[in-house]
Amino acid sequence: MKRIPTNQLSNHAGEQVLVKGWVNRIRDMGGVHFLVLRDRTGTVQVVLEGGGLFNVALKPETALSVVGQVAVEPRAPSGIELRAEKIEMLSFPAEDLPFAVNQGATLRAGLDLIFNHRALSLRHPRLAAVFRIQAEIVHAFRTFLREQGFTEVHTPKIVAAGTEGGAELFPVRYFERPAYLAQSPQFYKQMLVGAGMERVFEVGHAYRAETHDTSRHLNEYVSLDLEMGFIDGVEDVMAVENKLLAILVEHLAKNCAREVSRLGATLPTVGQIPRVPLFEAQAAIKERHGKESPRGNLDPEGERLVSRWIEETRGSEWVFITHYPVTERPFYAMPALSEPELTESFDLLFRGLEVTTGGQRIHDYRRLVASICRFGLDPGDFEFYLDAFKYGMPPHGGLAIGLERLTMQLCGLDNVREASLFPRDRNRLTP
Amino acid sequence: MKRIPTNQLSNHAGEQVLVKGWVNRIRDMGGVHFLVLRDRTGTVQVVLEGGGLFNVALKPETALSVVGQVAVEPRAPSGIELRAEKIEMLSFPAEDLPFAVNQGATLRAGLDLIFNHRALSLRHPRLAAVFRIQAEIVHAFRTFLREQGFTEVHTPKIVAAGTEGGAELFPVRYFERPAYLAQSPQFYKQMLVGAGMERVFEVGHAYRAETHDTSRHLNEYVSLDLEMGFIDGVEDVMAVENKLLAILVEHLAKNCAREVSRLGATLPTVGQIPRVPLFEAQAAIKERHGKESPRGNLDPEGERLVSRWIEETRGSEWVFITHYPVTERPFYAMPALSEPELTESFDLLFRGLEVTTGGQRIHDYRRLVASICRFGLDPGDFEFYLDAFKYGMPPHGGLAIGLERLTMQLCGLDNVREASLFPRDRNRLTP
Repeated sequence: MKRIPTNQLSNHAGEQVLVKGWVNRIRDMGGVHFLVLRDRTGTVQVVLEGGGLFNVALKPETALSVVGQVAVEPRAPSGIELRAEKIEMLSFPAEDLPFAVNQGATLRAGLDLIFNHRALSLRHPRLAAVFRIQAEIVHAFRTFLREQGFTEVHTPKIVAAGTEGGAELFPVRYFERPAYLAQSPQFYKQMLVGAGMERVFEVGHAYRAETHDTSRHLNEYVSLDLEMGFIDGVEDVMAVENKLLAILVEHLAKNCAREVSRLGATLPTVGQIPRVPLFEAQAAIKERHGKESPRGNLDPEGERLVSRWIEETRGSEWVFITHYPVTERPFYAMPALSEPELTESFDLLFRGLEVTTGGQRIHDYRRLVASICRFGLDPGDFEFYLDAFKYGMPPHGGLAIGLERLTMQLCGLDNVREASLFPRDRNRLTP
Repeated sequence: MKRIPTNQLSNHAGEQVLVKGWVNRIRDMGGVHFLVLRDRTGTVQVVLEGGGLFNVALKPETALSVVGQVAVEPRAPSGIELRAEKIEMLSFPAEDLPFAVNQGATLRAGLDLIFNHRALSLRHPRLAAVFRIQAEIVHAFRTFLREQGFTEVHTPKIVAAGTEGGAELFPVRYFERPAYLAQSPQFYKQMLVGAGMERVFEVGHAYRAETHDTSRHLNEYVSLDLEMGFIDGVEDVMAVENKLLAILVEHLAKNCAREVSRLGATLPTVGQIPRVPLFEAQAAIKERHGKESPRGNLDPEGERLVSRWIEETRGSEWVFITHYPVTERPFYAMPALSEPELTESFDLLFRGLEVTTGGQRIHDYRRLVASICRFGLDPGDFEFYLDAFKYGMPPHGGLAIGLERLTMQLCGLDNVREASLFPRDRNRLTP
């Protein structure tokens, strides 16, 4: 007998069906038990008449299979109920639950408890909603890029050198050699553009050994990366992201309305995203709020104030901040033609938080070597990367979106850890 | 002016277009230059009349942009040619090429040279074909599983314990703590089944610190993982893989015919894949070839002989080998009901090579703890994993496909490294 997901039961009224899931709630009405069975698609009310069907006390979170008749029942929450004929216990809770996942719109437990019992906490529909949305974000990202002629790639995470010059790396013992976990696929995605693929994307892990403990940082995160060749300038990269985000939000509106509403979140609109030079953004929040910014950057409060400014004056929850100084970007950032102390780079702020970093890269071999030297680094350490620039590397640029940050902002979460199934931070290495 | 990919030029006959790519070949016919321009979609013949258009010697692999008229020319390889009006050099080769990528159906260079100059070697159409096919394998995997109600997940690769009990792990220094690179997402995908997701898949890196250097092993590889709950038995998992492979091969036939033919490869047929108990496979190759197998397993030669046997007797290039002994599988493998010294597990052989390992897992908490102890391991080391089994873990199973191995076998490659963009092995950490 083929199992029917609970959200399809209404198509089977009057039929005998097989349903499987977890006990969400139980009510004993004197001889008649009502239970709500939960599977990955939703819940159904199950009616058990007579005590003969099962002779043990059912507990919440027991895994069950139920064979029964689907009956129309206007008083049931979904308009139908399942009249059980045969019940099989598949798996019993071995211990008392540390918290209930069947009560209320939010889960009443602290983050530590939530992560310590991840397999239980994710059964709460609000927490589950976050990861359905996340899966659809990734799906929309890939679908759009494939349509735009991008090829999906997988690049190594065990590397010999960092992309940013050695800071914040996790060391790995690779046989007899020292190695590191990749901070980003930056070098590799550029090399693959030059390798004739032209347009590549990757969904993969990135690692930052940052010691600070904030609500915006993970030490292991998923990076949505793309890189594209034969661009006219950094504007081409921003245009791709603008279009990607518009399609992504549309996809979520169409496919995740229930999850978005369960989270009490609101999807943003994505129009033409404003592009504002960094110095202008810094000046605006100085004037409006007396806010001082660090040299060549925005701090977290600055990001929030700039977002607020743009939302109030331009009506956009998104803003590209452009023209970061050479000194504040990696050595591969392309200097601006007219102002060589600035770069053809950008960050994207969304609802007060940086969710993307991108830009055009230096493609000329000699210029790149000179830039490495100017940063006080040794070109010899980057030989494997530089080789790709020796054989006609076209103009190119790209970006990286932090998946958990984008998820966090779209879902309205307070902490980026809530957007990671199994977060890794300074203090957490399990589960 | 919008760039047109070379494979779409025939739709623009008579029009002025912009094309970008690399110089593949050059012929100087006394005043008229012919060059073949290559982009990610193919090549086009470009005609340059008069010497005034450019005054430097064009070299192969120079990156160019060309504005010109598309003209029908029956003598040109693709039936059209581009008559150049304006040429812009985007990027020159800075050094002589270590090998040519524009000559012959195969690239004449050893593997080390190929990997040392990866950005150049991948410009050879035969090498590029492998990774187009690989991207489509992954796409077909995901598309099929999404349709079957699976959710894509991303699980941590920095872990506190190995899935196989500690062997062959790469150590990571995680702040003050020892940690390892994950050998597989095994624990996490199981936990997520129990977390109510029921059906999950992941495309992610896996790490094995195996010191042996063979043509079948990578130390970092991409694992196509799936795990599904509420199964009736291991047959459900094999059925999913059987269907997945049929659809995957169909997808490749439809979308990668050119790449498959460039590789001189033949796509397999996927019918009902035979299922053969291990002891039966061992006995058959013993009888046919006098081949002795290691206890409870097949060695590489054994895999080849079993594949040959099945192909000759059953006409299938695929075979599920089932019922491996408990002692040869991890502690979480489900013992067979009728023969508790065997497991409900399988490997899938394809053209003489193991490309998948899968099976049903133990879902009962107490039984799993007992199994850990029986393997001489400490349940305390697996507490984070065991927690997921305390709250009604349903019967479940899953599998892992080695992406590079599957690519290698489908493409007819000799070495699994050729199916990795940037392979990691005992001796190679760059590029």
